[in-house]
Amino acid sequence: MRVVPRPFPQLRRSLHEALDPSARTTGLSALNLALCLAILGSVAATIVETDPTISNGRESLFRAIELGFGSLFALEYLGRLWIAPEREPNRPPWAARLRWATSPSALIDLIALAPVLLVTAGAPLLVLRLFRLLRILRLAHMGPMSRALDLVAQALSARRYELTVTLALGGMLLVLASALLYLVEGAVQPETFGSIPRALWWGVVTLTTIGYGDVYPVTPLGKALAGLTAVFGIGLIAAPTGILAASFSEALRARDDSEAR
Amino acid sequence: MRVVPRPFPQLRRSLHEALDPSARTTGLSALNLALCLAILGSVAATIVETDPTISNGRESLFRAIELGFGSLFALEYLGRLWIAPEREPNRPPWAARLRWATSPSALIDLIALAPVLLVTAGAPLLVLRLFRLLRILRLAHMGPMSRALDLVAQALSARRYELTVTLALGGMLLVLASALLYLVEGAVQPETFGSIPRALWWGVVTLTTIGYGDVYPVTPLGKALAGLTAVFGIGLIAAPTGILAASFSEALRARDDSEAR
Amino acid sequence: MRVVPRPFPQLRRSLHEALDPSARTTGLSALNLALCLAILGSVAATIVETDPTISNGRESLFRAIELGFGSLFALEYLGRLWIAPEREPNRPPWAARLRWATSPSALIDLIALAPVLLVTAGAPLLVLRLFRLLRILRLAHMGPMSRALDLVAQALSARRYELTVTLALGGMLLVLASALLYLVEGAVQPETFGSIPRALWWGVVTLTTIGYGDVYPVTPLGKALAGLTAVFGIGLIAAPTGILAASFSEALRARDDSEAR
Amino acid sequence: MRVVPRPFPQLRRSLHEALDPSARTTGLSALNLALCLAILGSVAATIVETDPTISNGRESLFRAIELGFGSLFALEYLGRLWIAPEREPNRPPWAARLRWATSPSALIDLIALAPVLLVTAGAPLLVLRLFRLLRILRLAHMGPMSRALDLVAQALSARRYELTVTLALGGMLLVLASALLYLVEGAVQPETFGSIPRALWWGVVTLTTIGYGDVYPVTPLGKALAGLTAVFGIGLIAAPTGILAASFSEALRARDDSEAR
Repeated sequence: MRVVPRPFPQLRRSLHEALDPSARTTGLSALNLALCLAILGSVAATIVETDPTISNGRESLFRAIELGFGSLFALEYLGRLWIAPEREPNRPPWAARLRWATSPSALIDLIALAPVLLVTAGAPLLVLRLFRLLRILRLAHMGPMSRALDLVAQALSARRYELTVTLALGGMLLVLASALLYLVEGAVQPETFGSIPRALWWGVVTLTTIGYGDVYPVTPLGKALAGLTAVFGIGLIAAPTGILAASFSEALRARDDSEAR
Repeated sequence: MRVVPRPFPQLRRSLHEALDPSARTTGLSALNLALCLAILGSVAATIVETDPTISNGRESLFRAIELGFGSLFALEYLGRLWIAPEREPNRPPWAARLRWATSPSALIDLIALAPVLLVTAGAPLLVLRLFRLLRILRLAHMGPMSRALDLVAQALSARRYELTVTLALGGMLLVLASALLYLVEGAVQPETFGSIPRALWWGVVTLTTIGYGDVYPVTPLGKALAGLTAVFGIGLIAAPTGILAASFSEALRARDDSEAR
Repeated sequence: MRVVPRPFPQLRRSLHEALDPSARTTGLSALNLALCLAILGSVAATIVETDPTISNGRESLFRAIELGFGSLFALEYLGRLWIAPEREPNRPPWAARLRWATSPSALIDLIALAPVLLVTAGAPLLVLRLFRLLRILRLAHMGPMSRALDLVAQALSARRYELTVTLALGGMLLVLASALLYLVEGAVQPETFGSIPRALWWGVVTLTTIGYGDVYPVTPLGKALAGLTAVFGIGLIAAPTGILAASFSEALRARDDSEAR
Repeated sequence: MRVVPRPFPQLRRSLHEALDPSARTTGLSALNLALCLAILGSVAATIVETDPTISNGRESLFRAIELGFGSLFALEYLGRLWIAPEREPNRPPWAARLRWATSPSALIDLIALAPVLLVTAGAPLLVLRLFRLLRILRLAHMGPMSRALDLVAQALSARRYELTVTLALGGMLLVLASALLYLVEGAVQPETFGSIPRALWWGVVTLTTIGYGDVYPVTPLGKALAGLTAVFGIGLIAAPTGILAASFSEALRARDDSEAR
């Protein structure tokens, strides 16, 4: 492969500025905003398509919509491949393009393209299209929304050990509470408490305070144990919330300090 | 339209002090308090009126109540129109009144008056009366309650990007979790998980930990995925709570600092 | 009424030290601890007594228990009346006793005594006994538990306006959301959404994320509105939690500062 | 018992470094990591074993698995007994071993061994195996996860009185709310509200916002009281969360300060 001359240098530079979030210091370019909206549109179309009362008899319409969005994203991929050398002016263009094409983000883009090829496939592959949503996080790279995302990510990451420990303690509580309820309720309600794996479903639904109502204890002892579990369940929600609150406070202070300097 | 002489200068000034929240530096005037209570009364009457077991046979009573409240609010509107020049003594009265009448708050007052004209209309227009509730926020403009409202609004607004990001991540989680449950449970429970829009209802009810119990997974894999979703749902509640806690801490500190100066 | 001589000065002083929480600077006296346990015991007996499967055929036993606890609390009341002059040595004893007997806390004690006189009354009066629980808050006046209670009360009171504003906004959201659901679901589910008062029950159960499952929307539009309401419901829980977290932080800092001085 | 010569001094020292978490300053030794995984494996096997659809016909397999894990933990116990003198080089080995064997953590290890002896016992003893989970907390003693656990424990312990007070107030609210609902709903729904102990189940399920839906009020007054209880229930979740958030903030600051010194 030989180094080709750059045919439209000015066009490529403009496209680079419009497509590459890192080429700008402020805001979201109009092109990237349009791509975000296209992603949301393709996701919305996919969601609606799964409803048979809407999509039955309109299969060709939905296929056309998906082909349209798919072509747009394919064009975007080719565009990004073309402008890759703008990022690394000191390398030969093919090397810059290869580097870009093998980067994780470009591979995700390529995978996100795949579903369009399977436009007539069944539901499972259809759902793959929804993962295009994750691309929005990368496109919306600039501006206050991106700084906010960084702050949230930093607050989560700074206290990841404390959050993991809370989760682990919650897991222990879940296993022990489910085992106790299995002992107490197992004989009375074998369908729902007849084994620990079954009782675990009750445990999750109770400790997260969801409480669907498909499973609940009926014996007095079971109710007493469930009440105790529920009170601990509040602690299980309070602890990570408290950790996150403290972490956000610290991250905000740290950012204010670094901006004050 | 010519500039008319002020007929009751003293009365207009007193009424201005009683009606305009910005004319006072402390507390809520007795007149505005009475208007707040009248709003609450008209809302309560509207709520009760929708119950057929109470309102059947008492239509004329409820019509009289609403006409009474409506006349009171119309009088209030005329009063505010009359006193508008007090705010801007340097303008001709008609200009001050026009400025007030075209201000957003006066337009809202006018819209809030409309339902009284439709006293015999059906339920939808009846519900419009409830939006009078929002007027309380503006009437109760002074005093500690108003400063508290400012603090809450400031804490929300200072971290609006972080809250939006959390909401967007929550939306992604909602779509992905609902799509997975649709794949896993769709065949077994077509009524409730037979399409992604249907599964989204399950997703919202689960991630907000409401758990009505009209929809829940029944397959082991669906339960495992739902359990995982529920744990993330706790994070979805913990994150905005933590952000708000940090933001309130900062807003309180900022207020204390500015008061100490 | 003439001033009687103090018959057992030493005994009265000891009893004062044992009974009056404000007479000690540390810990809970053994006598007050015993009274707290007696309150808990009488409450537990009352709770159990309401269960017909336990109390049927044991009416005289429960009557004896209640008479026992009642006599104890009556003795305590007489004791407190007797020691009242210890608090105010400069007044004549009868004046100190009258002042104590008309104080709010003594009146509550007297009211808490009343149920024992109605030992054979029906369930409603039986429940009055449970209000004895509130006396524990006053008895346990010293020590770290009491300082913790003060801190909690101070944190709540310092941000009472912000909490009230949040509650008021929550109330507005509740009324508006219930009214919308009444419009959308009223025709389909008249039993549960046929009037705003009925829809309010759905609103409370949803905004507090309880979700019993006796009432939920069934139309697509109703579900969409309910989902939106549920997301706001998270905010309704997040806001007071964040306010309390900030307030506790401040109260802790203030206490640390005042102790450091 | 006489002091025996140390037969394999080098081996014992290596084993000590590998087994005793306090012998290392960083990370988790490979041996302790393997033991943690073995505990998780034995717990998982126990959970699965309780499901008759999986374990029926595979009894001997599960017995073999448990015997395998049991032997491993027995070996570990003997190993820890053997290396005990490494911790206290100045004492005779038998004294160090006796001290270790009578320490609480060693006694827990011994109890955690017991279930293997009862491999054919019924479900209750089977559940005892799950308490092995608690041993992980002690094994994972080093590294960032352990510091995080310390921080969580410290934040909980620093505010233990405030958390207890909140819990006590919650308990009072629970008793009073349940008693009121018993009065209001008892006659209409005797099965679920016919006594205070029965109504307490409703109270716990409501105040923790679980809301299974097996019990809920049906009368208007009962619903109004339940709505009020639910709003207080939010406070019951908000208060401990706020306390924990403030406590985590303080614990993080304290750690940062002590590390900065």
